[in-house]
Amino acid sequence: MTREDSILLDHGSGGRASHELVRRVFLPQFKNSLLDGLDDSTVFEIGDRKLAFSTDSYTVDPIFFPGGDIGCLAVNGTVNDLSMRGAVPLYLSAGFIIEEGFPIADLKRIVESMKGAAETAGVQIIAGDTKVVNRGGADKIFINTSGVGIIKNNTNISGKNAQVEDLVLISGTIGDHGITVLSKRGGLSFETSIQSDSAPLNKLVAEMMSVSDSIHTMRDPTRGGLATTLNEIALQSNVGIELFEEKIPVRESVVGACELLGIDPLYVANEGKLIAFVSPEDADKVLNCMKSHPYGREAAIIGKVISENQGRVFMKTSIGGTRIIDMLAGEQLPRIC
Amino acid sequence: MTREDSILLDHGSGGRASHELVRRVFLPQFKNSLLDGLDDSTVFEIGDRKLAFSTDSYTVDPIFFPGGDIGCLAVNGTVNDLSMRGAVPLYLSAGFIIEEGFPIADLKRIVESMKGAAETAGVQIIAGDTKVVNRGGADKIFINTSGVGIIKNNTNISGKNAQVEDLVLISGTIGDHGITVLSKRGGLSFETSIQSDSAPLNKLVAEMMSVSDSIHTMRDPTRGGLATTLNEIALQSNVGIELFEEKIPVRESVVGACELLGIDPLYVANEGKLIAFVSPEDADKVLNCMKSHPYGREAAIIGKVISENQGRVFMKTSIGGTRIIDMLAGEQLPRIC
Repeated sequence: MTREDSILLDHGSGGRASHELVRRVFLPQFKNSLLDGLDDSTVFEIGDRKLAFSTDSYTVDPIFFPGGDIGCLAVNGTVNDLSMRGAVPLYLSAGFIIEEGFPIADLKRIVESMKGAAETAGVQIIAGDTKVVNRGGADKIFINTSGVGIIKNNTNISGKNAQVEDLVLISGTIGDHGITVLSKRGGLSFETSIQSDSAPLNKLVAEMMSVSDSIHTMRDPTRGGLATTLNEIALQSNVGIELFEEKIPVRESVVGACELLGIDPLYVANEGKLIAFVSPEDADKVLNCMKSHPYGREAAIIGKVISENQGRVFMKTSIGGTRIIDMLAGEQLPRIC
Repeated sequence: MTREDSILLDHGSGGRASHELVRRVFLPQFKNSLLDGLDDSTVFEIGDRKLAFSTDSYTVDPIFFPGGDIGCLAVNGTVNDLSMRGAVPLYLSAGFIIEEGFPIADLKRIVESMKGAAETAGVQIIAGDTKVVNRGGADKIFINTSGVGIIKNNTNISGKNAQVEDLVLISGTIGDHGITVLSKRGGLSFETSIQSDSAPLNKLVAEMMSVSDSIHTMRDPTRGGLATTLNEIALQSNVGIELFEEKIPVRESVVGACELLGIDPLYVANEGKLIAFVSPEDADKVLNCMKSHPYGREAAIIGKVISENQGRVFMKTSIGGTRIIDMLAGEQLPRIC
């Protein structure tokens, strides 16, 4: 069996290899008009109501890290996937796969964290399942959360809807979650004071939507980071995206850790940030709204949509150059979420 | 750390230990009016519509077995959990956790099987997620499916609704899935010709509901088998249940395999069977309806609900005695689904 015949860590990166796996294995079988959107969540209709549905499994290692744990990550992640379609998240399911021998005290801590995250987001966990696998059959604990939310009928926010001249907003600093998890990974010797940004973004989104009807696209840049997410949107909307390097908020400590590790913060996962594509007339209004919210204080306008170079992302560098920003090619940071 | 402080395989059995874990760890945190039902799926309302929501993770070992594989099992399992509330299953999500090195050919085979199962059941897979964990971090592949279905407003089928004098119907032979999987487990030397009964029961349920408005309770007896499922219903509905031993359909080969292994078919998992509690007037009508459906040909009336011995299940044995049928106490068959 060659490398091409096997699942690689790359296939879980959220980057190019993940997209290829989806195109090669999943879409040919599961192809349907709803799934083809490839958004963070899928919208369907029941009677005259529009609902969003989303699923995500969490395998983060380590399970406890500064600023969060696998429990709150699992709740916030699905809350955010629903929110990125403009849905109000309502109900979540929680499916646990636990390794035999896992401490019940740790499970309690994780479940309490999920409860707290659900309360903060204002969602209810209404369905659950627990499987236990033999020792060595899984690494500690994996959690799947799926979720359902409701969307106002006139809302149509999707990765397909970015429009030329839209401005690209981000709600805060990039790379905090990925670098935090990496700094705690066994065998790595560096330590930072950074915390994961894991947070529920539904209330921030509700406020943004209350000040503007011209938010065309939202996405939370998780696996694969800002660069990969922007590439997805450029492809889905068939537009070019130009980024302003000096506008992208990054903590000094994240820059330092990335230099140490030889990785680019543009590709590092976030778990409490969103990007929004907004018409130029409304961009300042939405930006100010974001800045007045605890999860958007460091929001910034970091780029714009252009008609040239469809499907590609470019960076205007601070020294005046231009470089292509591609999708994440390999698995930079396995098991980051 | 003592045994009491750790997750044991028992906690995943679906039996007594699973129930204790739910009561001890999950319910204190996730307690809400919807989850407290503890049914196979949870019903919520959107506007004037009633929806059912369900989640299940699949960790079956081996992943391919006679009559099915982890893919069709994952689709059928969630289709069935929705159907047991009388819901029409509509949409499923699929979350994959895959071990690095897993053959892509096997993944394709599993995904094709999911597609086939979804088509047979008439549901669409509209949301997905793939995570890859390092070699040794998971055993081959785990799949979570969550699902949404719609319920007619006048339908109220729940484990809480069994009524005294209801008759207990089962759609066919017990133990086929569990014995099939066990017969293929590495290290076990016996072979049987039995196949898993993995099947989508939604169309059978629709036909049953079309002939009777008096189906009070439905449940698919998966982990923990018929005995555990009946105990759950006896507790939820606060009734006694009397079983007629000689009426319970079991294949000879399953009886033989169980004798060999020292296990009781009453506790062995099924993946394509349902039990229904039906008012005595409608029982024959529902039974005949079941018998005319491919998944209910060997349906039988196997017991009745009594007012005495609330919360307990008894067996009238074929030699005239009576014995208590308790929940599954330990982990008889780990990773059976």
